[in-house]
Amino acid sequence: MLYSPLLTDLYELTMLAGYLEEGMAEKPAVFDLFFRTNPFEGGYAVFAGLETALEYLEQLRFQPEELDYLRGTGLFRERFIEFLREFRFRGKITAPQEGTAVFANEPLLTVEGTLAEAQFVETALLTNINFQTLIATKGARICHAADGAEVIEFGLRRAQGPDGGLSASRAACIGGVQGTSNVLAGMVYGLPVRGTHAHSWVQAFPDELSAFRAYADVFPDSTILLVDTYDTLKSGLPNTITVARELRKQGHELRGIRIDSGDLAFLSQQARLMLDEAGFGNVRIVASNELDENVIESIRLEGGKIDIYGVGTKLATGEGVGGGALGGVYKLVAADGQPKLKVTSDIAKATLPGKKQLLRAIGEDGHFVQDVVCLQDDRIQGGDKVYDPINPLRHTTLPPGCHLYDLRRVVMENGRRTNAPETLGTMAERTRRDLSLLPQGCLRFINPHRYKVSISGSLNDLRNMLINDIRKGE
Amino acid sequence: MLYSPLLTDLYELTMLAGYLEEGMAEKPAVFDLFFRTNPFEGGYAVFAGLETALEYLEQLRFQPEELDYLRGTGLFRERFIEFLREFRFRGKITAPQEGTAVFANEPLLTVEGTLAEAQFVETALLTNINFQTLIATKGARICHAADGAEVIEFGLRRAQGPDGGLSASRAACIGGVQGTSNVLAGMVYGLPVRGTHAHSWVQAFPDELSAFRAYADVFPDSTILLVDTYDTLKSGLPNTITVARELRKQGHELRGIRIDSGDLAFLSQQARLMLDEAGFGNVRIVASNELDENVIESIRLEGGKIDIYGVGTKLATGEGVGGGALGGVYKLVAADGQPKLKVTSDIAKATLPGKKQLLRAIGEDGHFVQDVVCLQDDRIQGGDKVYDPINPLRHTTLPPGCHLYDLRRVVMENGRRTNAPETLGTMAERTRRDLSLLPQGCLRFINPHRYKVSISGSLNDLRNMLINDIRKGE
Repeated sequence: MLYSPLLTDLYELTMLAGYLEEGMAEKPAVFDLFFRTNPFEGGYAVFAGLETALEYLEQLRFQPEELDYLRGTGLFRERFIEFLREFRFRGKITAPQEGTAVFANEPLLTVEGTLAEAQFVETALLTNINFQTLIATKGARICHAADGAEVIEFGLRRAQGPDGGLSASRAACIGGVQGTSNVLAGMVYGLPVRGTHAHSWVQAFPDELSAFRAYADVFPDSTILLVDTYDTLKSGLPNTITVARELRKQGHELRGIRIDSGDLAFLSQQARLMLDEAGFGNVRIVASNELDENVIESIRLEGGKIDIYGVGTKLATGEGVGGGALGGVYKLVAADGQPKLKVTSDIAKATLPGKKQLLRAIGEDGHFVQDVVCLQDDRIQGGDKVYDPINPLRHTTLPPGCHLYDLRRVVMENGRRTNAPETLGTMAERTRRDLSLLPQGCLRFINPHRYKVSISGSLNDLRNMLINDIRKGE
Repeated sequence: MLYSPLLTDLYELTMLAGYLEEGMAEKPAVFDLFFRTNPFEGGYAVFAGLETALEYLEQLRFQPEELDYLRGTGLFRERFIEFLREFRFRGKITAPQEGTAVFANEPLLTVEGTLAEAQFVETALLTNINFQTLIATKGARICHAADGAEVIEFGLRRAQGPDGGLSASRAACIGGVQGTSNVLAGMVYGLPVRGTHAHSWVQAFPDELSAFRAYADVFPDSTILLVDTYDTLKSGLPNTITVARELRKQGHELRGIRIDSGDLAFLSQQARLMLDEAGFGNVRIVASNELDENVIESIRLEGGKIDIYGVGTKLATGEGVGGGALGGVYKLVAADGQPKLKVTSDIAKATLPGKKQLLRAIGEDGHFVQDVVCLQDDRIQGGDKVYDPINPLRHTTLPPGCHLYDLRRVVMENGRRTNAPETLGTMAERTRRDLSLLPQGCLRFINPHRYKVSISGSLNDLRNMLINDIRKGE
C-alpha cells in the first residue's frame, strides 16, 4: 500500500490533469531535487533513499480501486481517469550513489521525462530522499562521535510510524550504524539484528539474580544483561559477575552488560574496573538512554568505557537542531527544451536553471577539494574560474592540479533501473570513505567548515540572463 | 508488510523465548503504556493511534517466511519457532477512545494477557500510540492557534517515511485538522483531500497569467491560485483578479489564492483589500510556508486575513520544543497476580503498580477538574483525599460535588475488538469537546496550567509498601 501512486499530494494529480487538458502532458521537462541547508547545521549530508525511490517508480501504476476512488472525488474528468489507467513512469534519472557525501544546493536527483510523469513523482521522491538522507546523515554523525565504538539503532518504538522505523533502520545503516533492534529491517534489508532484554524481564522474576541466571541459561553465548533495574553498581554488577562465573564454568562467556540510566561515563568506568578485576575483560559494555552525537562525544571525552552505543529516538527521528526533517525541494529547471528559473527576491532561493552536471574536484592526494555545478555541456578543469552560487560577485579558481569527476550517473532509463541494487554494506563503506576524504572541519558538530559548492561561469551567465529576462518582463 | 510481527525489537523475541524456556510464558501479566511528559511542553496530549494498534493485534501471526528468517538467525531453538507458528494475541486491552485529552503518568493502554503475549506487543503498541498521539496533539495545538480558521495538512513530502505521512494525516485529523493533501490518506481514512498547484505549474507556462488561466480553465469551480511565483502583490494578485473576472463571466467563482512566502500577515491583509475592492470578497486566502502553532498565532494576532492554513513539515513530523517523538513507555505492573514496581533513585520514574482505573473528575458545570489514578477496586468519590504521584507529601481533596467517571473502557477482549471502529470525525469531535472542557490555561503554549493527575490513597500505600520491600532487600 505504501507503494500506491495515491501516496502523493493532490496537487500532483490536479496539475497532471491540467497538463493533459492543455496538451502539455507530453512535453519534455527536467526537474532537480535538492536541499538548501545541510541538516543539523552540519558540514555535509549523506545521500540515501534512492533505491527505495527507484523501486517505487518502477512499479508505479494505478489499480482499479484507486481509479474508482479518484473518480469518486468528483474532481476529474473521465478522460483523465483513462489516462491514469495507462500511466507509467518511463523517464530517466541521474543521481549519486547512496552513501555519497552531498551538500546544500547540489542537484541530487535530476528527473527527465514528460512534464506529466516528471511532475507527478515529486512527492514520492521527496518523501523517500528527504527522510532517508536525514537519517543517514544522523547515523554518520553518531558513528563519528562514537569514534570506532559500535553503534546499534533501536528507535522503532518512538519512530514516526511503522515505516518511519523501517526506513530509519535502513538509512541509519547507510550512515554507518552496525545493527538494529528492528527484526523486520533485519529480514527486509539483511541488517544484523541486536538486542538485550527489558526491565520487565528482571521485574518478572523474584529477584535480579534469578532473572539474570534465567536469561543466561536460555542464551548462554549471547547474553547481554541490563544492570540498572535496581542499582547498577551495588546490585547489577555483582549479580552480573556471579552469572558470568557460572557461565564460564559451563564453558560459555557472558557477552555484555547494558547500562540504561545514570551517569554513563562514570558508571561505565566503574563497571569496566569491576569486570576487569573479576577476570571479565572480554565482557562488553553497552550504553543507552537518549543518546545522540553530542552526548556520545561528551561521554567519550570524559573517558567513558563504552564498547557499544544503543541509540534510539534521536537517531530514528533525526532529532536535533536543524533536524527533524530535511527540506528537500523539487524544481522545474527545463521545459520544452528551455531552461527555467524560479526567481524570488532572495537570490539564495533562485534555482539553478537547465540540465546540469555535478562535479567533484579531488586534489592530488585524493581528498575532496570542492564541488562544481555546471551545465551539461561544460568542460570544467583545474585552473577554471568558478562562482559562488549565492553571491555573484565572489569567485574562485579551481586548483590547477585537481581532477574532476561526475558525482552522478544514470540510475534509471525508460523507467527501468540501469544497475543492480548495491548492498547496504557497500553504501555504508562509501559513506565511511567519503567522510574520510572531506576536509576534516566538515565533520565538526559546531560551526563546521563550509565545503565549497561553486557554479560554472556558463551556468552563472545563464542564470543572470534569465533573471534579467524576468525583471525586464515586470 | 508493516503489519508483520517482525516489526518489533529483537529483545521482545528473545524475552519471549526465555519465558517459554522458563515455563513462565503462560503466566498472567499486566502492562501499562504511559508517557512521563506532555509533548511540546504543553498542557495536554490528544490520545490517538489506538485503532491502528488494535488492527495490528487482531491480525498478528507469523508467516512461514518470517519463521524461516528467525530460524536462520541461529538465535532460537526449534521449539520456539513452533511456538511462534501458533502465536496469537488473545489478551484484553483497556484504553481511552481516540481524541480523549490525556496527561503524563496516566495509564493509557492497559494490556492483560499471558506474560508472553503481553510482553511481545510492546514495540508495535508504542510505535503506533507514540507517533499518532504526538501528531494528534500537534494538530490540536495548530487548530487552537488558527482559532476557527481551517487547517489543512500537507506534510507528506517531508514526513518520516511513506507511512510517517499516512499515519500523520490520520492523527492530524483526530487533532482537528480538516483535510490533507495526501491522496492515499483520503482513500484509506476517508479524509477530505485538498490541493492547489506548485510553482512549477506557473514556470511551465510562458507567463503567470496564462498559467492562471489554464488552471482555472481545467478546474473552474475549485481553483486556488499560487500567487507568489514572481511577486505576490504586483503580479500574482492583479493576474488573479483578471482570472477571477473571466471566471465570473463564465458563471464560475474563483475559490482562493495561496501565499507561500514573505510576510504572511501583511501580504494577506493587502490581498484581502485588493480582492474585496475588486468584488471578490468570497475568494479565500490560503497561507503556507513553515507554519506551526506559534507562527499561526502571531500572524493572527497581527491581524492577518487568512482563511485556511496549509501546514506541512512541522505538523507531519511533530516538530517543536518537546516534540519530535513522544516518549511513551510500556511497563510491567503485575505478574502472576502480584503488583510490580520499577523503582529507581528518582521517584518521578517509579511506576504505578497493580491493575488500575483512570478516573476523570468533572465539576457541576461539566468542566474537567482533575484526573485520579486508582486501584481497580477503589471506589473514589468527591471529598476523598488524593495524592501527588511525584511528591508523596502533597495531597489534595476532591471537590465534594464532583462526579467521577472511568476514562477508559475495554476495547479488546480475547484478542478481538469489542467495538466497531469510530469514524475519525467522531474522534475529532471528542478532541474539540475535551479541549473545551479543560481549564483554559492548559491550552496556553508557553508555561501552560498543569492539569492535576493524582493517585488514590490505596495506590499510594501500595507503592510505598513495594518501595519499602525493595529497599529492605538491598
